[in-house]
Amino acid sequence: MTADVGIIGASGYTGSELTRILSRHPDVNLEMITSRSHAGKRISDLHPYLRSICDMELTDPSMDRVRDLDLVFLALPHGISMDFVKEITLGGPRIIDLSGDFRLESRETYERWYGIKHSYPEAIGKAAYGLPELFREEIKRARLVANPGCYPTSVILPLSPVVQEGLVDRTSITVDSKSGVTGAGAKPNEVTHYPGANEDLRAYKIGTHRHTPEMEGVLSRISGEDVDILFIPHLVPLSRGILSTVYCRVTGDVTEEMLDSIYEDHYGNEPFIRLRGSPPRVQAVRGSNYCDIHHKLIVDKGLIVAVSVIDNLVKGASGQAVQNMNLMLGYDEGTGISQVPISP
Amino acid sequence: MTADVGIIGASGYTGSELTRILSRHPDVNLEMITSRSHAGKRISDLHPYLRSICDMELTDPSMDRVRDLDLVFLALPHGISMDFVKEITLGGPRIIDLSGDFRLESRETYERWYGIKHSYPEAIGKAAYGLPELFREEIKRARLVANPGCYPTSVILPLSPVVQEGLVDRTSITVDSKSGVTGAGAKPNEVTHYPGANEDLRAYKIGTHRHTPEMEGVLSRISGEDVDILFIPHLVPLSRGILSTVYCRVTGDVTEEMLDSIYEDHYGNEPFIRLRGSPPRVQAVRGSNYCDIHHKLIVDKGLIVAVSVIDNLVKGASGQAVQNMNLMLGYDEGTGISQVPISP
Amino acid sequence: MTADVGIIGASGYTGSELTRILSRHPDVNLEMITSRSHAGKRISDLHPYLRSICDMELTDPSMDRVRDLDLVFLALPHGISMDFVKEITLGGPRIIDLSGDFRLESRETYERWYGIKHSYPEAIGKAAYGLPELFREEIKRARLVANPGCYPTSVILPLSPVVQEGLVDRTSITVDSKSGVTGAGAKPNEVTHYPGANEDLRAYKIGTHRHTPEMEGVLSRISGEDVDILFIPHLVPLSRGILSTVYCRVTGDVTEEMLDSIYEDHYGNEPFIRLRGSPPRVQAVRGSNYCDIHHKLIVDKGLIVAVSVIDNLVKGASGQAVQNMNLMLGYDEGTGISQVPISP
Amino acid sequence: MTADVGIIGASGYTGSELTRILSRHPDVNLEMITSRSHAGKRISDLHPYLRSICDMELTDPSMDRVRDLDLVFLALPHGISMDFVKEITLGGPRIIDLSGDFRLESRETYERWYGIKHSYPEAIGKAAYGLPELFREEIKRARLVANPGCYPTSVILPLSPVVQEGLVDRTSITVDSKSGVTGAGAKPNEVTHYPGANEDLRAYKIGTHRHTPEMEGVLSRISGEDVDILFIPHLVPLSRGILSTVYCRVTGDVTEEMLDSIYEDHYGNEPFIRLRGSPPRVQAVRGSNYCDIHHKLIVDKGLIVAVSVIDNLVKGASGQAVQNMNLMLGYDEGTGISQVPISP
Repeated sequence: MTADVGIIGASGYTGSELTRILSRHPDVNLEMITSRSHAGKRISDLHPYLRSICDMELTDPSMDRVRDLDLVFLALPHGISMDFVKEITLGGPRIIDLSGDFRLESRETYERWYGIKHSYPEAIGKAAYGLPELFREEIKRARLVANPGCYPTSVILPLSPVVQEGLVDRTSITVDSKSGVTGAGAKPNEVTHYPGANEDLRAYKIGTHRHTPEMEGVLSRISGEDVDILFIPHLVPLSRGILSTVYCRVTGDVTEEMLDSIYEDHYGNEPFIRLRGSPPRVQAVRGSNYCDIHHKLIVDKGLIVAVSVIDNLVKGASGQAVQNMNLMLGYDEGTGISQVPISP
Repeated sequence: MTADVGIIGASGYTGSELTRILSRHPDVNLEMITSRSHAGKRISDLHPYLRSICDMELTDPSMDRVRDLDLVFLALPHGISMDFVKEITLGGPRIIDLSGDFRLESRETYERWYGIKHSYPEAIGKAAYGLPELFREEIKRARLVANPGCYPTSVILPLSPVVQEGLVDRTSITVDSKSGVTGAGAKPNEVTHYPGANEDLRAYKIGTHRHTPEMEGVLSRISGEDVDILFIPHLVPLSRGILSTVYCRVTGDVTEEMLDSIYEDHYGNEPFIRLRGSPPRVQAVRGSNYCDIHHKLIVDKGLIVAVSVIDNLVKGASGQAVQNMNLMLGYDEGTGISQVPISP
Repeated sequence: MTADVGIIGASGYTGSELTRILSRHPDVNLEMITSRSHAGKRISDLHPYLRSICDMELTDPSMDRVRDLDLVFLALPHGISMDFVKEITLGGPRIIDLSGDFRLESRETYERWYGIKHSYPEAIGKAAYGLPELFREEIKRARLVANPGCYPTSVILPLSPVVQEGLVDRTSITVDSKSGVTGAGAKPNEVTHYPGANEDLRAYKIGTHRHTPEMEGVLSRISGEDVDILFIPHLVPLSRGILSTVYCRVTGDVTEEMLDSIYEDHYGNEPFIRLRGSPPRVQAVRGSNYCDIHHKLIVDKGLIVAVSVIDNLVKGASGQAVQNMNLMLGYDEGTGISQVPISP
Repeated sequence: MTADVGIIGASGYTGSELTRILSRHPDVNLEMITSRSHAGKRISDLHPYLRSICDMELTDPSMDRVRDLDLVFLALPHGISMDFVKEITLGGPRIIDLSGDFRLESRETYERWYGIKHSYPEAIGKAAYGLPELFREEIKRARLVANPGCYPTSVILPLSPVVQEGLVDRTSITVDSKSGVTGAGAKPNEVTHYPGANEDLRAYKIGTHRHTPEMEGVLSRISGEDVDILFIPHLVPLSRGILSTVYCRVTGDVTEEMLDSIYEDHYGNEPFIRLRGSPPRVQAVRGSNYCDIHHKLIVDKGLIVAVSVIDNLVKGASGQAVQNMNLMLGYDEGTGISQVPISP
């Protein structure tokens, strides 16, 4: 049985990537793709790579049509997404929200870090955090899934085994992430202007990026204790991909064997996590839903270093959203997202 | 019914790309992947992106095992491939040869342009040229298919409609092609060393590239007259993709409408050709088997310009090889090669 | 004796590049740099690479201050530059205009190709075309120099020897140019957004780019006959650099030796032209004022191919502007622009 | 008075970059450039960007000619350089060694990290460490200068003020560095093959890179206490540039004002260090000898983060070597290395 789904906000990178995946998904009908600024155009005029694959017309979002869907993806900027969730209501079609509006634990945290008033705080506590490796059962039942941020996906996955098992000092975690430029979205600006981003490398928002409370919140929740992270993102000249290097201090006796078996226990059966014996490469996951993880114990320094890589637009956004959809609709979890990475 | 297939020479880019595609092809069993220099390793050790998708061991090529296959791909350097074809013989499994060894019309032309003696000239005339858009019926029946070169694919497709219809002067065609660096193969050298290729741009082999006689030969054959091409390749800093700009002089009265209808007649129903109203972009075909083509009549100068883009590793090599395999084995032509382009 | 110079429109790429060069020029005082949109900021806040090299404040353009200068550079968009030239008048400081406003031969041609009305047509005929290799003496005497476009510089230099000597058919010249992204200017847009330009390659404005009449005009003028060019620009994923491949048909008996000696005669003593025996690379001129040129006779086809490379921001814009300034002010032509290329 | 200098090992990136700089240095004669593998070729044949700037012939290294020099640069691989130093002896021309052979404090440390026997251990203690900002007076007097590694330059400069002043816990410093591909040298291999490095990102040698003891040794020496660093390098797809992010734990009460004044005290008058109020960019130093540094106190976490950028071939190698040469020969420290960065 196929489900009817729609995408609100299909013109940006995550919306286009959802279209790429859903147009080949065997169990859904893509019934509606919307874009206020491009209504009336075909999505393949906007994104020529979709020509003859998906030539649907972008329309204005219409609540009438949304209500006939089984599930709707919101690929909208934060601050706008919450209004749509409110309008659709939790009694309508199931919702996967790719914005940051429902990822944090409380209204207060949201308003402090995002600097805007939340228009639908009642729903915050009702959203499942859409990281299947940690919250699979909640996602299956959820009416509203808050799809994780790209950085948080790349950080929570390598950290959660050692944080959850209490192997590391939860108050002194440092995360040094490196992201490709699609992470900054499809809208041109000076930072993403090709000559400025090419042959460049920069750190930004040192300790102030709003993905920080998202990481801290989720890791605190699964470990039952406050987790404190210094998070520093960097912009790197490539289109797709995030590599996160996480640094933790071990708290007791830890051996490499213990670590191996903990990661194996947590992720050995996960369809989209590949544990690697050597540092992973961004290129090895491009275009796919995989997260590759490598960990290493630095014995003499009492430190654990883990390195993860994802495609920020797939496992870091739209692929993970489809993984969540599969769980919500009772499909096999990997349906439609088993694309082999493109490398080189 | 599934077929048993193998890849001889699976460690390079075209072999790895064949593995990427065939590992998800619903109608074949990939029975054998060989590599002399990496025998004993798993292909996913060599190409980490394939981990958990294809973890087969690379073996030494064995003729005994080859003879049990229904079809074998040769992803070998020219000069080596012909010896394998000879050993397999045309009575064994069907063969798709990705090298240049059987693409040219005669032994003499081959030996002049490739500078080596052909060891199996008898087979030259028996090979079908594996460009389905032009030679679909021959390919279906062929025991040996010579898979086209990447540049020739990108050049013959935009040229053949106007050459075949006799609209242009066949003796004054100029082709200016631009290729990404994977076109130079997987073996490191000074030209492909990152700091040398990055932020660079160069022309090379001006008028002397050996893909020239391949283009001329095929176009002469389909038009029944000698076609003469000046071909200049350029190396461009990107990984995948070829853009070819072809310049022809019109010979009679030609209108834009005539051109439109000729291209439409030739390619309107082709599953992997997309005719575009504006200049195409390499990014719009990356990772896919599409060839996007745009043509334009420059009325006051009496010239036709056509621009094509392909992914050199897919439509320019391994995707086209699988398209040929599908034809040879009686499958639907697009089976296993309907991947949506990855963009950006 | 040092001269006082200023830059109007210093915030874009050509203005910033002029600042880079002039801040180290031994014979000029950079007295004024203006920018309407960034007035009050230091140029090194806008362009951090200039910190401690040039920390001058950008100001609003003031005619009073302009009139005290010996020479002023206009690094403004076309259509705006002409108004400044008119206001400064040809009796004020000498002017080097980097826009397209005074490069064409006539008001009619300008208005047809640029689509705007020219506000100061009287000055068109009085401007010298700032290509020192062709018009050195005119430049020395000029009050107003129209600095050449980047594409025209890269095209006229390899073509002019054979066009001037009458070796080629002036009505069938084809030019296939490839430019890095700085050629599109400093203002972000969708084409120059990093993820869209990276790993892409495209042709654009096929036969309709407004640098075409500039090339045709100059080559017609130096050869005394109408020159007709089909010009097709391409966008390539690198920051700086243009490579132009030019194709001409020979008209009589031409030998490689003749060609060699003609290029040697024209350019053997030019300080910024390097004739190469093999195809040149963009990387070999990056950051420098050189134009490297290679030519080749394709005997059996009766064609000449020439390939040139420049840094579009230096020889294609600001470096050439300083070369012109040196000529106008009586300095040694290479003063301040002898930077060695940066490679890799 | 000009000095006679030579470069042994001029064919690689640091040798070529020395040639670029020295060919325009007003106070030296470049008398000799050597390369065993390319003897007899002109350096401009090997590196076409140098044509007409330096067309000297590469020769076999000859000790007779070396002894006539005032100063010689060794741009050789480690393990080979020490033999040359031994042969030249400390009584001959002054030596700047760009390899790692004399950078470490003891023979034991060298042999453990480099895995080879040191052939000239007597000289280890006699070499000055060529980081002018820390060891200016020693360098002036030295017969042998060990030019710092690229990573150590980018790490010691941002760390030394806070380590020296005792503001941070010297046993828990983490360094996350990101380097462009020229850092891996001019010799092609699989890691530096364009398609593998482009659109990729990877960590490598986690905690095992041999630049670690160099950083620890120098920082221990200037602070008088053992310094312990976890150093993790990453490879990033750009040609030139290193960005290092360093993480330290503060040990007492530290305020942002204290930090500002400490950095100002240490570096306010340094000609090649630019302190920045916001995170620096690699592009802002490309082609120049600058090191840009930004520091930030994360008050609630008790951490200091500092970020530095250099051009690894200039301040990280050949530019710094010339800075050292200027000090050794009594020239103004910035002579010949005041090139403005190239950006974009």
